[in-house]
Amino acid sequence: MDVQKAIQLRRSIRAYDPREVEEDKLMRVLESGRLSPSAGNRQERRFIIIRDANTRKLLGEAAGNQRFVAEAPVVIAACSVEKEYVMSCGQLAYPIDTAIAVDHMTLQAVEEGLGTCWIGAFNEKKVKEILQIPDDVRVVSLLPLGYPSTVPQSKPRKRLDEIVMWETWRS
Amino acid sequence: MDVQKAIQLRRSIRAYDPREVEEDKLMRVLESGRLSPSAGNRQERRFIIIRDANTRKLLGEAAGNQRFVAEAPVVIAACSVEKEYVMSCGQLAYPIDTAIAVDHMTLQAVEEGLGTCWIGAFNEKKVKEILQIPDDVRVVSLLPLGYPSTVPQSKPRKRLDEIVMWETWRS
Repeated sequence: MDVQKAIQLRRSIRAYDPREVEEDKLMRVLESGRLSPSAGNRQERRFIIIRDANTRKLLGEAAGNQRFVAEAPVVIAACSVEKEYVMSCGQLAYPIDTAIAVDHMTLQAVEEGLGTCWIGAFNEKKVKEILQIPDDVRVVSLLPLGYPSTVPQSKPRKRLDEIVMWETWRS
Repeated sequence: MDVQKAIQLRRSIRAYDPREVEEDKLMRVLESGRLSPSAGNRQERRFIIIRDANTRKLLGEAAGNQRFVAEAPVVIAACSVEKEYVMSCGQLAYPIDTAIAVDHMTLQAVEEGLGTCWIGAFNEKKVKEILQIPDDVRVVSLLPLGYPSTVPQSKPRKRLDEIVMWETWRS
């Protein structure tokens, strides 16, 4: 599937079939994260793959009781083992690097016929307890992965002329 | 081009042809950013498209004299008009949302036969002066865009078993 098509078709999927995700599809999604770039190629991002039903239930509770998080047959917890490196532009590297990897995964998932949803609404402390994540690791995002049972309409977006400027700020 | 192929072929391009980027290609790259998701669909990311040669020269200087930044016929400055919203997981939303949009653009660029390079090494204050960006806006990344004149080998990446864990942290 073309990149353009995958970008157009991607949705935040909040309803999943119980159908398992095939191993080869899961591995290609993970591989897409593995290949993603990071600042200085430090590759500080780590991924925990959760398929156990009880653990998914607990993660759903830690994510403000979003039931679909438990419903998806796979949940990926995207973490960083590094939390202090700041690029010279002033931005922490790890949230950006982890987001790049997860974004790669969301688009590869579309190509595989799978759905995902970026989850930033969760209690990090609870998620770390559930997954036995060390104190000095950050959890950046939870990503349910599975076959969509309902595909929502695309969300409205600002027009290009509302978000793009030419040569200088609002020139 | 398949998403998987685009992910495999993407490189950090640090040498560009002077050849112009066609308008339709540039617009599809920008459209891919426009369609990208953001926390709560707040769409706080903004993009300044710089084609003026002198401005690109100044940006290259502000990016630690990385000459290829000026060499690329287009530079995209990815900004955020919001800098304080924190998701309940504890992460600032804007660096992640802006990274998602830029990552979409990097993969769409590959599909168009174009190259990009994530630039986090720049002096934000100088870039804001050059582009007349207001104080309360953050510049998250500079992204040169153009036809590669040299395509480097892929960088080494950790193995999947070094970055992926199953069910719990290092279980």
